[in-house]
Amino acid sequence: MRLRNVKNKEKILKECPYLVENGEDCKGKWQEVFGNSNPIYLEIGMGKGNFLIQNALLHKDINYIGIERFDSVLARAIPKIPEGLSNLKILRMDAVEIEKVFDHEIHHLFLNFSDPWPKARHAFRRLTSPLFLKRYESIFCGEKEIEMKTDNEALFVYSLQTLTQAGYALFDLSFHYHKTHTDIIMSEYEMRFSKQGNAVFYLFAKKR
Amino acid sequence: MRLRNVKNKEKILKECPYLVENGEDCKGKWQEVFGNSNPIYLEIGMGKGNFLIQNALLHKDINYIGIERFDSVLARAIPKIPEGLSNLKILRMDAVEIEKVFDHEIHHLFLNFSDPWPKARHAFRRLTSPLFLKRYESIFCGEKEIEMKTDNEALFVYSLQTLTQAGYALFDLSFHYHKTHTDIIMSEYEMRFSKQGNAVFYLFAKKR
Repeated sequence: MRLRNVKNKEKILKECPYLVENGEDCKGKWQEVFGNSNPIYLEIGMGKGNFLIQNALLHKDINYIGIERFDSVLARAIPKIPEGLSNLKILRMDAVEIEKVFDHEIHHLFLNFSDPWPKARHAFRRLTSPLFLKRYESIFCGEKEIEMKTDNEALFVYSLQTLTQAGYALFDLSFHYHKTHTDIIMSEYEMRFSKQGNAVFYLFAKKR
Repeated sequence: MRLRNVKNKEKILKECPYLVENGEDCKGKWQEVFGNSNPIYLEIGMGKGNFLIQNALLHKDINYIGIERFDSVLARAIPKIPEGLSNLKILRMDAVEIEKVFDHEIHHLFLNFSDPWPKARHAFRRLTSPLFLKRYESIFCGEKEIEMKTDNEALFVYSLQTLTQAGYALFDLSFHYHKTHTDIIMSEYEMRFSKQGNAVFYLFAKKR
């Protein structure tokens, strides 16, 4: 994603009621943070936020947490969040730190248009690398669910292998997601991308 | 596949030294049939035979068995087989009978351009349906390996789900097999099909 600087980003972040400053303090206490025991769905790389915000508006009985590394990206997502959305939280952090923040508390993981890291020597950085799948083991509670969308065929082919080799099975799958599925909630990137008529790959994987 | 009648097909089949007349008699005895303990690779739906014959010529340390339902298709495959190919056998049978013919004797299964059976009510007839995957359980010995090629996206998407839900993991995968892989042995259908520039889907799945 192009990182355009945002004016007053420090102020936007500081004043945002959805931003949780220190995620590590919440480890094992996310039900307390939300004040209920609803399932928690996590998006790693929430980008400009549309996917997460629309989901949170639509499904009030699910708690959503978005992770994003970049201040300037978060500062563009935050102004879009309507007031009083009690089932949404945001964390400014790197996904490699995820085990420090969640302890068997996540029910469902979204990976939308993640960085494909095309070079083989960077493969470990892909969010579906064996290293990351191992990290997810301790954040998930109960059945592990991963839902992934990407426009990158190589990342998709890679992920189908790493996921199934880690014991995940596929319960839904499409090579033309926008043609085969309806009622799709799109990310900003996805909206722009799909207008150009490009194919989106989709998978829904579960591990017991 | 178009079923063109072949003259003298009864004679061709009767005189073929590769054709095993009663597969059920060989159940549990396939090592004896081949006279060695080399691994046995099976192709269900061998069609006009090129894939199986070329493999048998290339890999003398592997035994190959081809299954085909239709006399008229077999009668076109048989004349192509060179003399003295001791690692090749052919069975005229329906794949639904497969458990009657093999008892934990197959190391590797090829499914090349299988009938997609597009209607939902015929899904159980697809060679990667849960029903067929269950049948394969008792024919495989040791690690189960399935290698599949198809030009049918719907069958491929279906198979990725049924295979992984049955415990198979993906160890190789391509949505453009002829572009991503080299040293490909093609079936007759595949040769004609790939000349038209169409994409071939490929997977290699294993189950421990």
